[in-house]
Amino acid sequence: MPAEPFKVGLLGHGTVGSAFAVLLAERADEIERFNGRRPVVSGVLTRSQGDFAEILAGADLLVELIGGLEPAREYLLAALHAGKDVVSANKQLLSQHGEELFETARERGVRLRFEAAVAGVVPVVRVLEESLSATPIERIHGIVNGTTNFILSEMTQGASYPEALAEAQRRGYAEADPSDDVSGRDAAAKMAILARLAFGTPVHLSDVRYEGIEHLKSDDLEYARELGLGLKLIGTAERRDGGVSVRVHPAFLYAGHPLASVSGPFNAVTVESEAITEITISGPGAGGRQTASAVLGDVVSVMTGGARPPAPPLQLPLVEDVQNAFYLHLEMADRPGVLAAVTRVLGDTGVSIKSVVQRGLGENARLVMVTHQVLESRLDAAVAELRTLEFVRSEPRTIRVIEEEFM
Amino acid sequence: MPAEPFKVGLLGHGTVGSAFAVLLAERADEIERFNGRRPVVSGVLTRSQGDFAEILAGADLLVELIGGLEPAREYLLAALHAGKDVVSANKQLLSQHGEELFETARERGVRLRFEAAVAGVVPVVRVLEESLSATPIERIHGIVNGTTNFILSEMTQGASYPEALAEAQRRGYAEADPSDDVSGRDAAAKMAILARLAFGTPVHLSDVRYEGIEHLKSDDLEYARELGLGLKLIGTAERRDGGVSVRVHPAFLYAGHPLASVSGPFNAVTVESEAITEITISGPGAGGRQTASAVLGDVVSVMTGGARPPAPPLQLPLVEDVQNAFYLHLEMADRPGVLAAVTRVLGDTGVSIKSVVQRGLGENARLVMVTHQVLESRLDAAVAELRTLEFVRSEPRTIRVIEEEFM
Repeated sequence: MPAEPFKVGLLGHGTVGSAFAVLLAERADEIERFNGRRPVVSGVLTRSQGDFAEILAGADLLVELIGGLEPAREYLLAALHAGKDVVSANKQLLSQHGEELFETARERGVRLRFEAAVAGVVPVVRVLEESLSATPIERIHGIVNGTTNFILSEMTQGASYPEALAEAQRRGYAEADPSDDVSGRDAAAKMAILARLAFGTPVHLSDVRYEGIEHLKSDDLEYARELGLGLKLIGTAERRDGGVSVRVHPAFLYAGHPLASVSGPFNAVTVESEAITEITISGPGAGGRQTASAVLGDVVSVMTGGARPPAPPLQLPLVEDVQNAFYLHLEMADRPGVLAAVTRVLGDTGVSIKSVVQRGLGENARLVMVTHQVLESRLDAAVAELRTLEFVRSEPRTIRVIEEEFM
Repeated sequence: MPAEPFKVGLLGHGTVGSAFAVLLAERADEIERFNGRRPVVSGVLTRSQGDFAEILAGADLLVELIGGLEPAREYLLAALHAGKDVVSANKQLLSQHGEELFETARERGVRLRFEAAVAGVVPVVRVLEESLSATPIERIHGIVNGTTNFILSEMTQGASYPEALAEAQRRGYAEADPSDDVSGRDAAAKMAILARLAFGTPVHLSDVRYEGIEHLKSDDLEYARELGLGLKLIGTAERRDGGVSVRVHPAFLYAGHPLASVSGPFNAVTVESEAITEITISGPGAGGRQTASAVLGDVVSVMTGGARPPAPPLQLPLVEDVQNAFYLHLEMADRPGVLAAVTRVLGDTGVSIKSVVQRGLGENARLVMVTHQVLESRLDAAVAELRTLEFVRSEPRTIRVIEEEFM
């Protein structure tokens, strides 16, 4: 007698939802061969059809691909309370109501899986939860937004920001309203989820400082090219000063950094730990079929018992003010005493300079500096001061610099 | 009342074994917090002390870090027959007696984990078994031997093969007798294990054709540098013509290939599948603590129920003769009619040329060609014929070329 089928209730039938239903049907034989039970879609809820309570009652597991906060949150909580395992690809929900969901799953002893919410097909959630459960994570650097990585790759090849954005929209990598991507907010939500996983402490989207790529200038990319640096939108989650710091910023990467060579609409995550040095995982940013594949991987993981309910959270402090090296770019009039005035301001605010290059002449000179490690608050104070100097002709620009640490 | 500790019997106490015992003690609190049970080493077997039967009887799980075929095989079979889960880092054993072990584990319904046997800390076994269980794998390309990758990186920077090997030995990356690494045999064992995992069909080390790096010349690396190609020792496991092909060869990689930028003593594996396009995972080749971390990850995976006994094997044919593009290098005397003679031989044997460059003059000319895709047997036939031409001055050299397929 064959085993009972494994019944999957599907919430949402858009791009990812329909790709998931197709992939599940294609792979059902193989999954059954390995796991003994055959997965089937037992019900589908869309805006216009299906009844949530009925789908929930008839399912062994619920897959949530609706997106957004409500009613996704209500549905997931109902499923967890009913003791059903849940798979979700919803980064907004997890980065804003994650603790409520984790806590409910923990109380009910059920699984809540969300590989597809973070880095598309790149299995960083799995690797953090399982392979690296034996080692304390020190830091994660991630390119977790394929749209902005594509735009920066195009700009590196000479396109302006508006041209690169238009190309991303033409290819379907960017939405008509790209603000969630280009502002860094999408990456911030994903980093909040990764930080929660890596450090076990609650991190809300609102805890993540983020900065996007809209203000980057071709000057900055030219500088990167000249010095052989990569310029990427980097999410960072790391232990700092006994707490955890999570942030998203454009950053220069030295050429040997594993993320420096990741170009186009790709995601990549580097995980650092004393015991393992570093691991990097990369792959395409999410398309419908890729995301569906990550979701199905989570379903299989629950079927095989390979996932566990969340652990109770730790409570680590979130550190706001951290040290970084910075690139600092000033447009200014080149008059006698100007460099001395700038270095005095920096010295007074405790910012120490590693290298400085002056370019151009007369009223259109530019001063490009790289600082040693300095607290962001100190750099902000220095920039506020520099802004008041009468020969500084436009807003000073700062970009973080990620230097070599390993190997 | 606290839960019973999870008792780990440890076979072997060399570099990895002692690093494992240290790491387990360091991480016991955290593992207990997540999993409810505390892992402890309940017994250690070395050459001079410990009794195997006693250690087996007192353990929930056995970790095998002895290496070699016997007595490791005998111990693992005994453990599996006794219904104990097993974690091993033994690539020799798994690539030569894997089916016997898998079959025994399957019959007894116990787990056999071996992440550390393949790519050190790079969690490719986990990713193949779990994250990608939802998608059919088409191809794996891997840099799975850090020693040879280090040597090739040094050669790319101008070192000769003997210099690079000496440097690898000085740094402890290569053994005094490096033949297992530089011949490609170590990589072949790992690719046999990966192919078994990815395609579900038995692959024995003796089924893997392999070629090492000992015969590479600085000419070849110069050519790679000029054309912006990487030259790596690449393991390939792929579906071909309804079967599976597994092999290890030096290969030129186009600059955008995810493995082209992996340099130094690193491992990296690219997994390709229609649904996911490709994922690449990279990290340091095995050191004692890194390998221990991978072993401990496997132990945790068994503790949490996140691993399952092996599935019954498929029986796919192993394909020996596959198509590749080739770089073909001839040293010859440049006389009238020479190029015509070479192209006639190639044409007659069905080898089609994509590009050709002639260098040098007179008696010391070199002809460097890149072929279109051609069956290896045809290329071998062409090389046998070219060897007989009286103006060809030394053994023709061939290196595979891996061309862009995605993105």
